[in-house]
Amino acid sequence: MSAEFFNVLPPDDARALLFRHLTAVLPAETIPVPEAIGRVTAVSIHAPHSLPTFRRSTMDGYAVRAADTYGASASLPAFLQVIGELPMGQTATLSLTTGQAALVHTGGMIPETADAVVQVEQTQVISNQLSVSGNPLSVSGDRFSFPFETEVFRAVAVGQNVLQIGEDVRQGAEILPAGHWLRPQDLGGLLALGITEVSVVRRPHIGILATGDEVVPPAQTAVPGQIRDINSYTIGGQVQQAGGVPIYGGIIPDDFTALQTAAAHLLAQTDMLIMSAGSSVSIRDMTVEVIEGLGEPGVLLHGVATRPGKPTIVGVVNGKPVLGLPGNPVSAMIQFDMFGVPAIYRLQGVVNAPRRGQVWAILTQNIASESGREDYVPARLSDGPDGLLATPVFGKSNLIYTLVNADGLIKIPLNKGGLLTGEWVEVRLF
Amino acid sequence: MSAEFFNVLPPDDARALLFRHLTAVLPAETIPVPEAIGRVTAVSIHAPHSLPTFRRSTMDGYAVRAADTYGASASLPAFLQVIGELPMGQTATLSLTTGQAALVHTGGMIPETADAVVQVEQTQVISNQLSVSGNPLSVSGDRFSFPFETEVFRAVAVGQNVLQIGEDVRQGAEILPAGHWLRPQDLGGLLALGITEVSVVRRPHIGILATGDEVVPPAQTAVPGQIRDINSYTIGGQVQQAGGVPIYGGIIPDDFTALQTAAAHLLAQTDMLIMSAGSSVSIRDMTVEVIEGLGEPGVLLHGVATRPGKPTIVGVVNGKPVLGLPGNPVSAMIQFDMFGVPAIYRLQGVVNAPRRGQVWAILTQNIASESGREDYVPARLSDGPDGLLATPVFGKSNLIYTLVNADGLIKIPLNKGGLLTGEWVEVRLF
Repeated sequence: MSAEFFNVLPPDDARALLFRHLTAVLPAETIPVPEAIGRVTAVSIHAPHSLPTFRRSTMDGYAVRAADTYGASASLPAFLQVIGELPMGQTATLSLTTGQAALVHTGGMIPETADAVVQVEQTQVISNQLSVSGNPLSVSGDRFSFPFETEVFRAVAVGQNVLQIGEDVRQGAEILPAGHWLRPQDLGGLLALGITEVSVVRRPHIGILATGDEVVPPAQTAVPGQIRDINSYTIGGQVQQAGGVPIYGGIIPDDFTALQTAAAHLLAQTDMLIMSAGSSVSIRDMTVEVIEGLGEPGVLLHGVATRPGKPTIVGVVNGKPVLGLPGNPVSAMIQFDMFGVPAIYRLQGVVNAPRRGQVWAILTQNIASESGREDYVPARLSDGPDGLLATPVFGKSNLIYTLVNADGLIKIPLNKGGLLTGEWVEVRLF
Repeated sequence: MSAEFFNVLPPDDARALLFRHLTAVLPAETIPVPEAIGRVTAVSIHAPHSLPTFRRSTMDGYAVRAADTYGASASLPAFLQVIGELPMGQTATLSLTTGQAALVHTGGMIPETADAVVQVEQTQVISNQLSVSGNPLSVSGDRFSFPFETEVFRAVAVGQNVLQIGEDVRQGAEILPAGHWLRPQDLGGLLALGITEVSVVRRPHIGILATGDEVVPPAQTAVPGQIRDINSYTIGGQVQQAGGVPIYGGIIPDDFTALQTAAAHLLAQTDMLIMSAGSSVSIRDMTVEVIEGLGEPGVLLHGVATRPGKPTIVGVVNGKPVLGLPGNPVSAMIQFDMFGVPAIYRLQGVVNAPRRGQVWAILTQNIASESGREDYVPARLSDGPDGLLATPVFGKSNLIYTLVNADGLIKIPLNKGGLLTGEWVEVRLF
């Protein structure tokens, strides 16, 4: 079947079609939580106990019985007897009776017999009916001998300035679903509950092949007619940023058998295969045939309604994505971002894929487009008097420096014929 | 000097004050380009040669002398004699005379004697005055024996469909400045020029100390009154995301000498020191004294006009940033993002720090704030009928799950007293 028979699909439909064929999640492995940044949970995780595990003060002050402060005001303070200090890190064993209080630090445990905390700023220590200066909670400063008296200038309600047991998370609650992409705070949430190891999905290994008789390794001197392989490494960089492991398969000449053999070999060892093919129609046709020969279902679509990147080939073989990207470096990067990166998340079952950062900026030049096609134009950002400015970096998609000189991509939606100078446009950040 | 004498500064002023004291960039090291994602160039890099190094076709078609096509149209085509094919990866040696053309693939070199390329779609092969079907550029399909004749239906201008030498980058041009944070396309830009190793700034090592009598390691069972150390690892995660290397110094009790000793030891080994101190005033005062004792200039400011995170201590000792963060995990993370992450970039001399991703969303609940203070409210994003919705995740800043359950932070600027339901708000993504 010739490639010409495949439909050119809008990007969202193309991605949905690919995703329908990617249902299996890669196997799990167990790793220490502090090393799990950017990894993905393999199973749902529940709280082994509530958090906090004890009632904690949110203020420096006094643990009190709230009823003892009712009616207190600056003009008519309540008087409390401070019978001791609640040391940090120890179980609060002091017992308060009516009219009694205990010094407590922020984060400290309050005793069974207390039900609120009065902020130290709302109190004043009294000795022989005179105010005493100094902070009774200071480590280095004045210390007071217990018991002493303090005035309270404001009433507190039951529970005020106190974290309740389970207020952060309750025992048994699902704290993270399976497929959660782990961020710094998620590590904190696990460790707070004593969970120091986590079952995560193995990192996807992404096989990358460059093809083309004209392509030589970057370390090699290129004679006129030859170019150095850069797509392997720009895509490898994108793979790393998305949390995958690039496996470089080298450069294959424009020969069906050589490409077929190399592709089958690399696909068997990896979880996804990327072929950065030449941009010539003949090479694209060859890539389609190679993918068809690798296994079922083979090529899903040949062509995406975008610019750059229309001749992208999207396939699946034995549950593994296989992408044939255009040889132009700009097209290859944009298309890998559109299909490869989401597929890396999908192979890990990610439910909270990191959102692509974007900024709004004022367009400094008209951009033409065609309705029915999604365009991506590299743009450079700078600060202007009325906000951020987006200046298109025009250039053919063979020119890698159009991307080196850009900060992001302006997306022109399917239904727009272009964008005008002065419009606010969305710039997707690299 | 008591901490009370230090000014509370707005965040931007606080960061500017810190940066004025951070002038030195860390030493450089040389690494292979494919491993340089997220690293920072130590020196300015110039193009050793122009790119492309030869004139390349941007289309499948025929290398021609443009003048031979002048006036050609569908009704009155030009006729050209195709004398051969220009093979990919080889120097184009064919010589064209008037009326001659050569088959060329996308990316192929065009010979000295050609000055434009006619797209194959604008041509038709002729044999015995009849059109011949088949693609003369197909690898697998029909081959034509040279010479053969082709019709050309559209004129091309000199240079059309040809990449000129140096069109991507010119020999000697600065391709990347010193301090450039390297992205996938930058690796491509270097490799395209045969630059396979790059001098980058050493990764900053960030020392992290947790302090508090109540803090125990995450693997330890916490008795009532104790909490597990999570700030070391949430901050460690942020350090990793920003390209630094976390060096964990463990948990230090609330004791001046112990903290002073541990801080001096860890600072000597690292490029920045983070102390995640308790939230009690007494512990904050101790942290200030410790930083003052470490060296000059010491504490720069004690207090930032933000919520959460007001009691942040920002200092510099011997050119190294020293931060005393609040003990509350939410405050600690937000403040590290505000000062620690920019300092990690600053230590590497970054000129193109990655922009924080953000999205606009419709607020689903009122949020109160105070003018003169920058507030950060964790928010969860979801899709609504009119766009993205941002729902504040309210909770005390002791509660790490307010961040676990959030996708980003809503920033309430210094000059606003709050935000209203239905307003479009900017959400800074985690």
